[in-house]
Amino acid sequence: VANLTTLLDSIVERGRSLIGRAWEGARADPLELCAQLLSRRGEASGVALARDILDQLDAASVEDRRAFLRGLAVRFGADQARLAAAVEAWLQAPTATTETALHFAAEPRRQEVIRRLNQAPGGTTALVRLRADLLSIADENPDLRALDHDFAHLFSSWFNRGFLVPKRIDWTSPANVLEKIIAYEAVHEIRSWDDLRNRLEPPDRRCFAFFHPRLVDEPLVFVEIALTKAVPDAIAPLLDLSRTPLAPAQATTAVFYSISNTQNGLRGVSFGAFLIKQVVEELKRELPRLSTFVTLSPAPGFSAWLADERQATASRLPSAVRDALAPLDSAHWQDDATLVDKLRKPLLTAAAIYFLSAKTSSGRPIDPVARFHLGNGARLERLLMLADASPKGLAQSHGLMVNYVYDLDDIERNHEAFAERGEIAAHTAITRLVSAARRVAVES
Amino acid sequence: VANLTTLLDSIVERGRSLIGRAWEGARADPLELCAQLLSRRGEASGVALARDILDQLDAASVEDRRAFLRGLAVRFGADQARLAAAVEAWLQAPTATTETALHFAAEPRRQEVIRRLNQAPGGTTALVRLRADLLSIADENPDLRALDHDFAHLFSSWFNRGFLVPKRIDWTSPANVLEKIIAYEAVHEIRSWDDLRNRLEPPDRRCFAFFHPRLVDEPLVFVEIALTKAVPDAIAPLLDLSRTPLAPAQATTAVFYSISNTQNGLRGVSFGAFLIKQVVEELKRELPRLSTFVTLSPAPGFSAWLADERQATASRLPSAVRDALAPLDSAHWQDDATLVDKLRKPLLTAAAIYFLSAKTSSGRPIDPVARFHLGNGARLERLLMLADASPKGLAQSHGLMVNYVYDLDDIERNHEAFAERGEIAAHTAITRLVSAARRVAVES
Amino acid sequence: VANLTTLLDSIVERGRSLIGRAWEGARADPLELCAQLLSRRGEASGVALARDILDQLDAASVEDRRAFLRGLAVRFGADQARLAAAVEAWLQAPTATTETALHFAAEPRRQEVIRRLNQAPGGTTALVRLRADLLSIADENPDLRALDHDFAHLFSSWFNRGFLVPKRIDWTSPANVLEKIIAYEAVHEIRSWDDLRNRLEPPDRRCFAFFHPRLVDEPLVFVEIALTKAVPDAIAPLLDLSRTPLAPAQATTAVFYSISNTQNGLRGVSFGAFLIKQVVEELKRELPRLSTFVTLSPAPGFSAWLADERQATASRLPSAVRDALAPLDSAHWQDDATLVDKLRKPLLTAAAIYFLSAKTSSGRPIDPVARFHLGNGARLERLLMLADASPKGLAQSHGLMVNYVYDLDDIERNHEAFAERGEIAAHTAITRLVSAARRVAVES
Amino acid sequence: VANLTTLLDSIVERGRSLIGRAWEGARADPLELCAQLLSRRGEASGVALARDILDQLDAASVEDRRAFLRGLAVRFGADQARLAAAVEAWLQAPTATTETALHFAAEPRRQEVIRRLNQAPGGTTALVRLRADLLSIADENPDLRALDHDFAHLFSSWFNRGFLVPKRIDWTSPANVLEKIIAYEAVHEIRSWDDLRNRLEPPDRRCFAFFHPRLVDEPLVFVEIALTKAVPDAIAPLLDLSRTPLAPAQATTAVFYSISNTQNGLRGVSFGAFLIKQVVEELKRELPRLSTFVTLSPAPGFSAWLADERQATASRLPSAVRDALAPLDSAHWQDDATLVDKLRKPLLTAAAIYFLSAKTSSGRPIDPVARFHLGNGARLERLLMLADASPKGLAQSHGLMVNYVYDLDDIERNHEAFAERGEIAAHTAITRLVSAARRVAVES
Repeated sequence: VANLTTLLDSIVERGRSLIGRAWEGARADPLELCAQLLSRRGEASGVALARDILDQLDAASVEDRRAFLRGLAVRFGADQARLAAAVEAWLQAPTATTETALHFAAEPRRQEVIRRLNQAPGGTTALVRLRADLLSIADENPDLRALDHDFAHLFSSWFNRGFLVPKRIDWTSPANVLEKIIAYEAVHEIRSWDDLRNRLEPPDRRCFAFFHPRLVDEPLVFVEIALTKAVPDAIAPLLDLSRTPLAPAQATTAVFYSISNTQNGLRGVSFGAFLIKQVVEELKRELPRLSTFVTLSPAPGFSAWLADERQATASRLPSAVRDALAPLDSAHWQDDATLVDKLRKPLLTAAAIYFLSAKTSSGRPIDPVARFHLGNGARLERLLMLADASPKGLAQSHGLMVNYVYDLDDIERNHEAFAERGEIAAHTAITRLVSAARRVAVES
Repeated sequence: VANLTTLLDSIVERGRSLIGRAWEGARADPLELCAQLLSRRGEASGVALARDILDQLDAASVEDRRAFLRGLAVRFGADQARLAAAVEAWLQAPTATTETALHFAAEPRRQEVIRRLNQAPGGTTALVRLRADLLSIADENPDLRALDHDFAHLFSSWFNRGFLVPKRIDWTSPANVLEKIIAYEAVHEIRSWDDLRNRLEPPDRRCFAFFHPRLVDEPLVFVEIALTKAVPDAIAPLLDLSRTPLAPAQATTAVFYSISNTQNGLRGVSFGAFLIKQVVEELKRELPRLSTFVTLSPAPGFSAWLADERQATASRLPSAVRDALAPLDSAHWQDDATLVDKLRKPLLTAAAIYFLSAKTSSGRPIDPVARFHLGNGARLERLLMLADASPKGLAQSHGLMVNYVYDLDDIERNHEAFAERGEIAAHTAITRLVSAARRVAVES
Repeated sequence: VANLTTLLDSIVERGRSLIGRAWEGARADPLELCAQLLSRRGEASGVALARDILDQLDAASVEDRRAFLRGLAVRFGADQARLAAAVEAWLQAPTATTETALHFAAEPRRQEVIRRLNQAPGGTTALVRLRADLLSIADENPDLRALDHDFAHLFSSWFNRGFLVPKRIDWTSPANVLEKIIAYEAVHEIRSWDDLRNRLEPPDRRCFAFFHPRLVDEPLVFVEIALTKAVPDAIAPLLDLSRTPLAPAQATTAVFYSISNTQNGLRGVSFGAFLIKQVVEELKRELPRLSTFVTLSPAPGFSAWLADERQATASRLPSAVRDALAPLDSAHWQDDATLVDKLRKPLLTAAAIYFLSAKTSSGRPIDPVARFHLGNGARLERLLMLADASPKGLAQSHGLMVNYVYDLDDIERNHEAFAERGEIAAHTAITRLVSAARRVAVES
Repeated sequence: VANLTTLLDSIVERGRSLIGRAWEGARADPLELCAQLLSRRGEASGVALARDILDQLDAASVEDRRAFLRGLAVRFGADQARLAAAVEAWLQAPTATTETALHFAAEPRRQEVIRRLNQAPGGTTALVRLRADLLSIADENPDLRALDHDFAHLFSSWFNRGFLVPKRIDWTSPANVLEKIIAYEAVHEIRSWDDLRNRLEPPDRRCFAFFHPRLVDEPLVFVEIALTKAVPDAIAPLLDLSRTPLAPAQATTAVFYSISNTQNGLRGVSFGAFLIKQVVEELKRELPRLSTFVTLSPAPGFSAWLADERQATASRLPSAVRDALAPLDSAHWQDDATLVDKLRKPLLTAAAIYFLSAKTSSGRPIDPVARFHLGNGARLERLLMLADASPKGLAQSHGLMVNYVYDLDDIERNHEAFAERGEIAAHTAITRLVSAARRVAVES
């Protein structure tokens, strides 16, 4: 097989030499080549054209890549005449046949361009990278949104979970995969190979990832897990290089302390939820004594939200809570046990309100990590004071971290309540913090 | 990984138990479940629902499966209100945005049903089988054509050549793969494991196939090759169990004597052309002395066409040729050297006309094998008298076989001439047969 | 890796070209080359010489191979002068140093020849084959016994169980391995690929083998297993192509119905016992409900022994038993229910005596299969009347088969009792048959 | 297979429980257990005993391990009575039979102990480690030399080159293998994972190793290679992290700049020579343009030898040379271009004498690296002034490095000349330095 795959290159070379004649030595505009890609029906030259377009894009400047994307968006819409005719036919007789014809007539030709580019060796990888570029400029270019929709549509199909391959990552994994784990870890930075080894090699550590057959050696999403005897309330002990590992058979708890997506270009194509559930099942099977599956998660939006609320004229925070949060403004409060004690109640109350009451315009929690886990059917279990005292942790959430629990028996119910009615599953200790704050607010 | 994949089953089981509660013990109508599949947003129950639908279909009678397909075609069209609104919006302002909105609004909801069914373990395999059912009844049910279009559209995307994995099949391949080669061989039946071994194990034999990551151990298309010192003019010597193998380094010619698609359900998703080209490149690299790449192909439509022409009042066949073909009607003519000699000229002339002049309503060669190889850019090289004297060979083509040559330097040009202008690349010896026949016809 | 291994060939070629010069075109006597193999110290030419010797032997006639073996035995003994000196030194001062020196001085130089031949690509395979030749002539050539001792000694070291790799064989195994299973099955002939598939593919069938890293795709020993609900009393139902498979989870019993060694050349290097124990453990782990591990074994020496005893003047068989066995001489007694009934008691009594009392000159059971299983620590459990009514079964044992039970808790005790005191573990029903027969004999 | 191998543990556990009964709770002396290992014939308990002995040794103190080794050496010699009888028999009739009997009678029983220990899971690894211990004390314990001989003898058989598996090491290799490359690199320390990657990932770098099936993920010997356009004269540019890689197709020269054995316990079992030759062949095949295969090697004994010679009354060094070497004693001479220039001639002359004339008592070059490469048939090609200016390089060889050339056409001849007559293949520029020095010495 190895032999055959490198073959593709030589086929492409040959196809390219044929194209070459037509070009007379000069490199054609890649948008021109996309037009040829649609019109030519030759197999060999199709792949060669695709490869050539992708190679040009690979070597192009940022500006040229963006220009290409804009051209793709603008010049490869649907065939207007065909579309108009299909609309006309459907209006006259709205049958299954005219409807399907309308669907295909309205398909922007850029979808077929993307599909044909995907035939080139390395095509999927290049397209995922290209969409990352697109996302970086889509906000300022409303006319690119339709193109992004096309990418997302095709990627959903190609990265359908049925095509994903789950694999365990450990210290026997290839170095070129491991360096990507180091590079992509988004939650708790991996500082060195020793730090990485500390997360992979001890018997009480696990790491799982999804791969896709065409993105070789490229993890799409991965989750890091610690096996423990209790639900942890801080991150530092888990990452401590000098801790003594636990015998896995003695563990009762699996802690998902980091989950990272790696491919910007696959934004909106979700696999994280599925990975977590699959890993929960795998761990239960390997270690039947495990009874608790819990995250140790950051609250990345908390500090920003709290700053706003503390300054707002009309805040969700009772004024008593706001007043009690004043010590947050002293430098190094986290090192002063008295201040920490004083802050505990009001900070956790504010956090409870943040998670349960603060919503986006579409009625979902402000916190993105909360949206992810609650959307998966997890339950908000504990709010952890000063669980991440790193500079990043203090900056984004005043050190706050959170446990979400994955209880397989409740996942589905929680998920539906959340998805359909916006209900958040939370431990009563947290809901009580909110109701107590409300009572105080009303009473005061 | 092995562990993780079996996991999916247990996730599905759990999801199914959740669904189960809703069902109160009774199995729901699979079309109802498809409706749920679209409305529910739960991950776990989504996969479980998909699996359940596929399991029911797997156990269902042919009639029930067909009923399901009809229901899918009829009940899961586009949302009419949304589509009407999108049409209205586009008519008012035909922008990229309204166009894209129209495209997605016109997408039949059954496409999303099919995508979600694909998430189940074994989903792709089940869907390919389902489409095979669909194809068997689509002709009589015009309302199923739109559904077939949906399947074909999604399969083209999922079986994009970028996702295909080429592999060599040999005598060290797994038995469960080899038995499929035996079962699927469509051209020259493999009668036993010894016959199979004879096509795989000798040093002058090769077999290559395309696989897809989700159709495990299931070759999609495979080609059988003999390495020889000359272009063969009959099939029997190639399949002879007692022949002496040739040292591969001495071979000058690679003969593609059989190419078989295995999945009815993937009809219209073509990979054969690409496989042939890839194999040509692979063989050239392994054995640089190979200079000729040629098929030994059947002519499956020849007998039927010839029968028609001989009876037609207005035939493409000059009457002299028709008269000379009379001995074809004697039993066992093939065993009578005199008759064979007499028939040679007129039969090959008729064959030349069959390949070069007989066209379908859309202007393409009547012979399906010719359409395939000429469409790939091959050249019609030789017409071979009595090259397949098996009962099947005599029945379908009076024993005629054909060599098509794959010359990488001409493939692209031939392909384009054929695709765009219907021109057929053929050896002058064959074109001359046709012009000679015309001359005779004119002169007489 | 694949690349590198083929490399060895080219190194050998180069080395050979160097040797070639010395030979001046003529092929040297392989025994001469063995002498060079010991004297030359060149690495490259060492491997090349080894390969050349083995190639010559591979192409040689049976007679020439035997001549080579005789020459190896005679001409490559220990260096006599060195040995005499070492003996002298040891006699004068029998220390650890002189003792070790004596050991190495007495080592026949042919051991080093064999070790160096093993360096060639394919060397181990060739040497195993060579010893098979040796064994076929060793009986008539007492002077070859020392050479056989050398082979056995080195093979024990190279095929140390630590170097054996256990693998499951199933229907996804490579065809070139499976054809060896067909060829090597020594107990119940595999008649076709369908028969083989019937032993591998159903969910209630298992097959395991030991492999060695240097004998690629070559099973050394394999065992075939049926999962059942009861201890079987006949072979035919197990091999029935039309039976309905059992769900493995319902099985309580694992039946080892065939165990075959494949390499004559490894005679005396035992791995069968270890394979059985390893497979018992594996099955227990996969299917915890399995509680009984039992063989269904032939009694290959029974008919011959019984014929002798029936004719002997002084027989272990009581004359009453002998008389009752007379119907054995009628043709087709096995098809006559009355005769079968009459024969049951005396035949099983004779069998009990055969297994428990008939011994070789070294005090071990005459039956080779009994020696194997009892030596492994199994218990003789049941004698089965007409359990194998095939011509072979009737010929070798009047249709008798036997169950041996592997009970892991008793294996070690049974093994020791058998190895040290010759005690045979047997079910009381069988020992009672013997004592009843004795009583009868004494009383009569 | 994975499943089956872990099985061994459970067999061992069971065997151990049987042993346990005999021990009555207390752990037996491992030497006692070795005695049992020889006497017991049980398969299961044999492996369990072996494992238990190795586990005890694994947990034992250095002193206890040494005591064990001494006990093994002393208590497990040959059976004296049997040996005496065998000597007697041989003296009376020195036939092949008595000779073989003598050989086996003189075999120290500790060889069988070692073979049986090897049956335990992980046995080979444990034994290699044990011999490393043995080597560390063997010098002071002459009575251990016989035991070391036994280890060496068995390891030669088990690590016969036929059993070694060559593999390429690159940046896709498992991290647990790569960390061993970092740990074992003996020539030019690998300071970090970035340094390692710099030696593996660039297209003009290669690394190959030998593995053994039973020492999983444990390279036995590895060689690091740089592809260049010229024979290098210093090490620093090769290891430079910021250099621009060369396209492999442009390389003409393969530089073996580091070769490291990893297992002390395998001392005397040589595979390095074979690895180099195999890698030369592999590289020639992959990159046909490569024409030069050369090392860049240290001269680890040069400084020490030179210090001795400069102080000796009777030195091989002409006094003129000795005088001219005086600047070596100034600190930082290597940074002073004038001193370096002055030293060049005398230092290279001294080096030439060191390599060509300085011999051990057994007549072989003093320099161990020279012994290795010259013994492999390489040629001493160039002496490189200040090629390794690292502290280690200056300390061991005043910065001197050496190129040895591997020319496949001469390897065999060079090897034989060296092995049989002690002749050293060297470039005439080097031999001339020696003869010039001699002339000077004579003339002066």
